[in-house]
Amino acid sequence: MTATDVEARLVAALGNAVSVERAALDEAMSDKSGHVSSGRPLAVVTARTIEDVQAVMRIATETRTPVVTRGAGTGLAGGAIAGPGEIVLSTLAMDGLLEVSVDDELAVVQPGIINAGLNAMLEQHGLWFAPDPASRAISSVGGNIATNAGGLLCAKYGVTREAVLGLKVVLADGRLIELGHRTVKGVTGLDFTALMIGSEGTLGVIVEATLKLRPVVTGPVAVIAATFPGVEAAARASAAVSASGLRPAIMELIGESAMAGISRYLGSDHPAGSQLILQFDGPGADVEGDAALQVIRSLGGDAQLSTDRVAGEALFAARRAFHPAMEQLGTVLIEDVCVPRSQLPAMFAAIGQIEERYGISIPTVAHAGDGNLHPNFVYEGREVPEAIWAAADELFLAALRLGGTLTGEHGIGLLKRRWLRDELGDDQLDLQRQVKAVFDPLGILNPGKVY
Amino acid sequence: MTATDVEARLVAALGNAVSVERAALDEAMSDKSGHVSSGRPLAVVTARTIEDVQAVMRIATETRTPVVTRGAGTGLAGGAIAGPGEIVLSTLAMDGLLEVSVDDELAVVQPGIINAGLNAMLEQHGLWFAPDPASRAISSVGGNIATNAGGLLCAKYGVTREAVLGLKVVLADGRLIELGHRTVKGVTGLDFTALMIGSEGTLGVIVEATLKLRPVVTGPVAVIAATFPGVEAAARASAAVSASGLRPAIMELIGESAMAGISRYLGSDHPAGSQLILQFDGPGADVEGDAALQVIRSLGGDAQLSTDRVAGEALFAARRAFHPAMEQLGTVLIEDVCVPRSQLPAMFAAIGQIEERYGISIPTVAHAGDGNLHPNFVYEGREVPEAIWAAADELFLAALRLGGTLTGEHGIGLLKRRWLRDELGDDQLDLQRQVKAVFDPLGILNPGKVY
Repeated sequence: MTATDVEARLVAALGNAVSVERAALDEAMSDKSGHVSSGRPLAVVTARTIEDVQAVMRIATETRTPVVTRGAGTGLAGGAIAGPGEIVLSTLAMDGLLEVSVDDELAVVQPGIINAGLNAMLEQHGLWFAPDPASRAISSVGGNIATNAGGLLCAKYGVTREAVLGLKVVLADGRLIELGHRTVKGVTGLDFTALMIGSEGTLGVIVEATLKLRPVVTGPVAVIAATFPGVEAAARASAAVSASGLRPAIMELIGESAMAGISRYLGSDHPAGSQLILQFDGPGADVEGDAALQVIRSLGGDAQLSTDRVAGEALFAARRAFHPAMEQLGTVLIEDVCVPRSQLPAMFAAIGQIEERYGISIPTVAHAGDGNLHPNFVYEGREVPEAIWAAADELFLAALRLGGTLTGEHGIGLLKRRWLRDELGDDQLDLQRQVKAVFDPLGILNPGKVY
Repeated sequence: MTATDVEARLVAALGNAVSVERAALDEAMSDKSGHVSSGRPLAVVTARTIEDVQAVMRIATETRTPVVTRGAGTGLAGGAIAGPGEIVLSTLAMDGLLEVSVDDELAVVQPGIINAGLNAMLEQHGLWFAPDPASRAISSVGGNIATNAGGLLCAKYGVTREAVLGLKVVLADGRLIELGHRTVKGVTGLDFTALMIGSEGTLGVIVEATLKLRPVVTGPVAVIAATFPGVEAAARASAAVSASGLRPAIMELIGESAMAGISRYLGSDHPAGSQLILQFDGPGADVEGDAALQVIRSLGGDAQLSTDRVAGEALFAARRAFHPAMEQLGTVLIEDVCVPRSQLPAMFAAIGQIEERYGISIPTVAHAGDGNLHPNFVYEGREVPEAIWAAADELFLAALRLGGTLTGEHGIGLLKRRWLRDELGDDQLDLQRQVKAVFDPLGILNPGKVY
């Protein structure tokens, strides 16, 4: 079966949902990781219904053609990048909000709905879908689920896995299955909903999701911004805040190289050193904020607290300027390791050593409440230079040594496959591949990704 | 290979860890479901180390002998019941608390540690393992994980799945794998930790767990007990409390037949009708309690609120008397369906109809915050009469029709296998069996349970 035959079958079944326009094909060759595939995919199919997805998968199975499911293309690990001979199955146009139940605090959505757009619609019902990846303004909920996306609020409000009750999934051969339920509890059989979340398009195509919502958080908000002479002192302070039982909604830590880059970008007198920014919300926010302020000052932080929403938002200025500051310097590889939060100082120390050894700067921010670091590598050109991968390799192994993981929230995709075995071990990796084969016996679902 | 040969090999490898004493064998024939297997198992092995577990599994694989892993034997679905020709692998003596990290809010435990005992040890560190099945005084953490145990506090504090970071698991052939990590985030590969939680001994033997802890909740507690003329009014009030965004730590609903049984048992003037009991904790407990009191009274509840710990505990008297009251009446089958909480009134109505049709009483309590009902069937003798199963069958199908699930927190075990296909559907059930076969190609792990 040639590519032309596959295209003809797709067009016969799906008509103008199928595109072979150069712009559409080019777009699917990359994502926000900066990585670009080796060539154009076969076609882009814009599915509008579950039946469209089933039709694509039936043709893919019959013709043994690989399928890359794609949402908004905002991934940072190359998980939705497509190359030669592959069908791109876009679920971005399946973007409906099908149901909101205030009584059951749930919503039923199609996968292409944008995270922030969904939350704008939910707000009028007093409800909130808590997963908040930094990409929330542009990323789809289906993509959030496929990568088990995190964000700034996870230490208090959990990751995507904790916000999904059930899924409808189209299997590799086009059959539709329903996983999970509309209840917050349920232990019937193996937890296939959890298995699907974070599976990065390797097990099936998510075509509908029942989301577990929370009431919108109202009441006071307390924001603290604290400057420390060095990142290890700031990391110790963040660990002390967590260990004292306080539960900030946000606790962001900005390393020294990152602060230097931000100060240059803002052209301002932003202080050097390292910054820790916390936000408390909910009924006890002001009391908790005061308690955290004590902890931070007792550990040498130069800190201010605001309970005013506008002034509080201003305290986030440095953090919000980080990504724009990096993008001005060159191409950016945003890394994503996670360590037990007590190991944050040790991980920052390890990053410092790698910076010295390689003679590079690795500006780093961290979601300190859950030990998730984003070391940024800035370089010239499109492809990540091997020297950068060598430094990243040391960084990954340091995270694993400290009891951490290769990826806290971005996924394995294409970019981290070579380290997968280091974390999972031979036996688990082998089992994972076998489970993948149960769902995808022909190996047509996002081949070459993750495994 | 005869049973005697298997026993000889176990004794050669494990010495006096192997018991064929009649009392030990008899004990493993049943659990707290009341169900009893058809005959004595082959032997009971009391593992003390991971190596012991590995040795058992190697012998089981070589001799194709079924293994039933067993903790404290407190299950309510027959998941850890063993019969003729089966090895009982007890992990109850592996009961160590291996590590507590205050900074990372985690503990590393062996599977046999008792839930309440663990929490007593954690309290001195200001930490808490939140899963709180009603059996917490006698159930093992390994069993809590194997069944994804729930409890009274789940609506606010989550189920067991949300409290486990990582697991060590011995596979069917004796290999040891490590799943998950010590971090609160992590998306490397498929989520095998979640897959293992609730798998009821069908995929492997849990030999160690890294638990995600919470700070002990301090501060005020507010308890409300409210009486309604009928259960549907009480259920509507509970739904209104949830929908108003309030988040009680506990919200228990006692149906009319259950209240009648409790009143007889206590021999007191406990009111008829239906009772709703709520507990709020944490910084905003008293404010939230006042708000809930308004909601409940506005819906016709005769309610009182207490912020005194002793007086508050007294308001739980009726709920605490429920199980003893039932046990005095005969043998009890505690059922466990879960529906979207908006469907609680409809589910209670369905139970009322089944009571009428079968001429039986089905005293029911519910964890109303998450729609989890425990209808109780009381009968004479040891085996559940077929008429009771017929009524239970209608009850399960009613829960499924309302968008619910067969089991909120007890599991499928032996007792609910015949309804599994009704909930999962043919295609999903087939995939689940294939995944089970990846982990257990010889079918020796808890055969006949769940699948």
